[in-house]
Amino acid sequence: MDKDGSFSEWYNDILRLAGIVDVRYPVKGLYVWCPFGFKIRRYTYEILRDLLDSTGHKETYFPLLIPEQEFMKEAEHIKGFQDEVYWVTKGGLDDLDIPLALRPTSETAIYPIFKLWIRSHADLPILVYQIVNTFRYETKGTKPLIRNREISSFKEVHTAHESYEDAEEQVRKATEIYKSFFKRLCIPILISKRPDWDKFAGADYTIALDTIMPDGKTLQIGTIHNLKDNFARTFGITYEDKNGEQRYVNQTCYGISERCIAAMISIHGDDKGLVLPPEVAPVQIVIIPIIKKDHELQIIEKCESIKNRLRTRYRIELDKSDERPGAKYYKWELKGVPFRIEIGPRDIEKESVTISRRDKNEKVSVKEEDIEGWIEEESDKMVYDLYNKAEKEMFSRIIEYDSSEEIAIAQEVCREDKSDSSSQNHDSCNTSIDSKIDESYKIDKINKRYVYKTGWCGKESCGTEIEDKTGLKILGEIIDEEKAGRCVLCGDESKIKIYLAKTY
Amino acid sequence: MDKDGSFSEWYNDILRLAGIVDVRYPVKGLYVWCPFGFKIRRYTYEILRDLLDSTGHKETYFPLLIPEQEFMKEAEHIKGFQDEVYWVTKGGLDDLDIPLALRPTSETAIYPIFKLWIRSHADLPILVYQIVNTFRYETKGTKPLIRNREISSFKEVHTAHESYEDAEEQVRKATEIYKSFFKRLCIPILISKRPDWDKFAGADYTIALDTIMPDGKTLQIGTIHNLKDNFARTFGITYEDKNGEQRYVNQTCYGISERCIAAMISIHGDDKGLVLPPEVAPVQIVIIPIIKKDHELQIIEKCESIKNRLRTRYRIELDKSDERPGAKYYKWELKGVPFRIEIGPRDIEKESVTISRRDKNEKVSVKEEDIEGWIEEESDKMVYDLYNKAEKEMFSRIIEYDSSEEIAIAQEVCREDKSDSSSQNHDSCNTSIDSKIDESYKIDKINKRYVYKTGWCGKESCGTEIEDKTGLKILGEIIDEEKAGRCVLCGDESKIKIYLAKTY
Repeated sequence: MDKDGSFSEWYNDILRLAGIVDVRYPVKGLYVWCPFGFKIRRYTYEILRDLLDSTGHKETYFPLLIPEQEFMKEAEHIKGFQDEVYWVTKGGLDDLDIPLALRPTSETAIYPIFKLWIRSHADLPILVYQIVNTFRYETKGTKPLIRNREISSFKEVHTAHESYEDAEEQVRKATEIYKSFFKRLCIPILISKRPDWDKFAGADYTIALDTIMPDGKTLQIGTIHNLKDNFARTFGITYEDKNGEQRYVNQTCYGISERCIAAMISIHGDDKGLVLPPEVAPVQIVIIPIIKKDHELQIIEKCESIKNRLRTRYRIELDKSDERPGAKYYKWELKGVPFRIEIGPRDIEKESVTISRRDKNEKVSVKEEDIEGWIEEESDKMVYDLYNKAEKEMFSRIIEYDSSEEIAIAQEVCREDKSDSSSQNHDSCNTSIDSKIDESYKIDKINKRYVYKTGWCGKESCGTEIEDKTGLKILGEIIDEEKAGRCVLCGDESKIKIYLAKTY
Repeated sequence: MDKDGSFSEWYNDILRLAGIVDVRYPVKGLYVWCPFGFKIRRYTYEILRDLLDSTGHKETYFPLLIPEQEFMKEAEHIKGFQDEVYWVTKGGLDDLDIPLALRPTSETAIYPIFKLWIRSHADLPILVYQIVNTFRYETKGTKPLIRNREISSFKEVHTAHESYEDAEEQVRKATEIYKSFFKRLCIPILISKRPDWDKFAGADYTIALDTIMPDGKTLQIGTIHNLKDNFARTFGITYEDKNGEQRYVNQTCYGISERCIAAMISIHGDDKGLVLPPEVAPVQIVIIPIIKKDHELQIIEKCESIKNRLRTRYRIELDKSDERPGAKYYKWELKGVPFRIEIGPRDIEKESVTISRRDKNEKVSVKEEDIEGWIEEESDKMVYDLYNKAEKEMFSRIIEYDSSEEIAIAQEVCREDKSDSSSQNHDSCNTSIDSKIDESYKIDKINKRYVYKTGWCGKESCGTEIEDKTGLKILGEIIDEEKAGRCVLCGDESKIKIYLAKTY
């Protein structure tokens, strides 16, 4: 596998070889989660559940099928989704009286019930979530875990509050929860406020979390929407306030899908296979006996006893198969097992074991009695290292522009990209940009695209022209980063900084 | 709430009042899982997951949407499901080229992939499962958790084996797993082999688990199917055996749905509300401070300290609201909390607390330091008691027949039932049956229907005539209960015993 050579090929290979998903299901855009991949998914969503449960969110389940009349109530929402909704029109051999939409997202399934649940200020806030399959009839190219027609594990939160300010506060809390979540997956994120023409259909505004994938394109891995009272007005969700007056609730919703797993696999993986943070690794430790003649029984016994000691704390495997140790290393590295323990005659003599960490190229001799302590410490270090490596890598791909002269270069790069330029062309047109990047991270320039940071006056006309000229998308206004500057297009003074990127 | 008066009303009331599901979703047969109900569901399915994970089953996820051509491959299967499948025919504004079925069950989604996964005997057995939403376009009356159009948490296992004998062995293992599962929910079960005309569409035979609901009707709460090589032949699932020959696999599948929760609620609940086994109770212990003047601070402090001590082991709530203790009892009894701890000035004096168990009408004074030990012990006793009470109740409702004279009585009962007889009529026609029942369980005869046990020669003609004449359904041959006897209809000698019942 050659991640830097062709990320796309590497991605497909790793999904197959590590047993994440099977792409051979006979409908475009639908995939099968294999047992190993499903375990990663389970542990990943356990983190999300923990974070939500401990911050006042309650898990629920609302039906998949949304009747047409509810789905069609919110005008903006329909516009945003009408091209990509699947419709159930038949039950058995009958035509249904009312077509039923497969939820693309659940506002229109949940809010008619919110209307029933909410009576007074004492019922607020409401914070519910569900982890469900949702559907988008994607006509563009599909890609496993990234652009599916069935998003099989969409986590969506829906909240209702007394005031717009309370909803804003919830947006901030959600941002913090999502930051914690991605930190635990060691995924660095860019947070921005999407431009108005790219916000969620029906929202007041949308905060988005993106990460940069190995091919330089950004992947949206989380969104948080302040819905204001837009849906409340449509669905008639009111409450009696402290003064006895009827008011509309203010709402937020925020979601994360299996794209979080796509990002985790892509960002940390290497040419040997998966690299997984211990918390989500289906197998956290593998023990490989290093069998030498005359010592077989003794070594296997030692391996068994260490395994039994560790199994109460860790998800652990002992590989007693007949393969050579090298073949075993290869197999378990592919699966992203964070720690490998080797035990041979020499280790037994020293009352030690040899441990290596998946993301490092070194073996360490650890005293038998110190294994748990060592693993504990190195687990933390591994999470720290994975995150920092990924964050460094991400920031090395972000270049700040100050002038339209520089935008011209970006345009050039994009045009080159579009005509599928050879690496040589790519290199030459990148020269002046590359000079901005810390040399130490210029490991590889093939496939290396950049995310650009620049000023924007905030006018939609300038925004769309910037997008048109560069062939890039405005991710949005960078949150908490106001700095005096100028719009890269019209030159007007502006405090708004934006990210510009190729996106998935 | 009056469970014995009208079970159906009681059932709807308890679902609403305890916050299990909301039935007001605007499509027939689709329900919303409320936060409290969802927690019961989560803990219940955790038991199932544990049991499956520890017996070699691997969790997976297969797509919801099944293309028409795959769904239509197995002739028997189509016949069984064609009247109740939902079809997606539109994506966005386009008609789909190929209609997509919403899975009513996943054989036809999974087995094309089994064909790809299985090559040789070394790949066998395969045991996968998924917990997913499935759909049935029910035209009959729907009832929450019992007859849904969206079964939102269907657990389905699919296995493949080398031989028919291996598949039979798996059927036995599955039966044991299901027995353990229902034992932990304290639900007694009847196990029988469905008659051929009632087996799963495409199966060789079906083993079913039923329980008797409080209204005397049986509810199917689990099925286990031996599929033989029927689907393997349709989907071409072959493997190379040890001699290098290509053979068809033999398969089984087995499922459990949220009906298990309907049964648990119905069987254990009483007029005060839910009664939940501690393992699945969202709140296992509630602490109620018994405030007396001058002692308020001291009591609250004690309650807090006991709560903090117990919270690491139990899901616990301390109810500090302003309501009177009586109102609090009422509220938490409704929610089925297994243990209630009251702490008042007298308890503090004695360094004790007062504990009561939800299913018993007594209060016990327990020394503070003994709380954990007491709860531990009483949890086990409670599970034991709930199960035994339910089992005794179930067996008290099963009556054995030996003659066709007695069938006539059953017929009469059924006719009375159909014409919605008053309890008085009901009683009178039941007299000769009642005489067979241990007096101690004749607590209530209103709404009390019976399950009948009788002999059957095994001929379909006799079977259907028994069903026609009695208006009852043959659940199936009772497993592991062979006894010399006669067919209740034709009088031929037979070892087969069957259950006859009104069913959901």
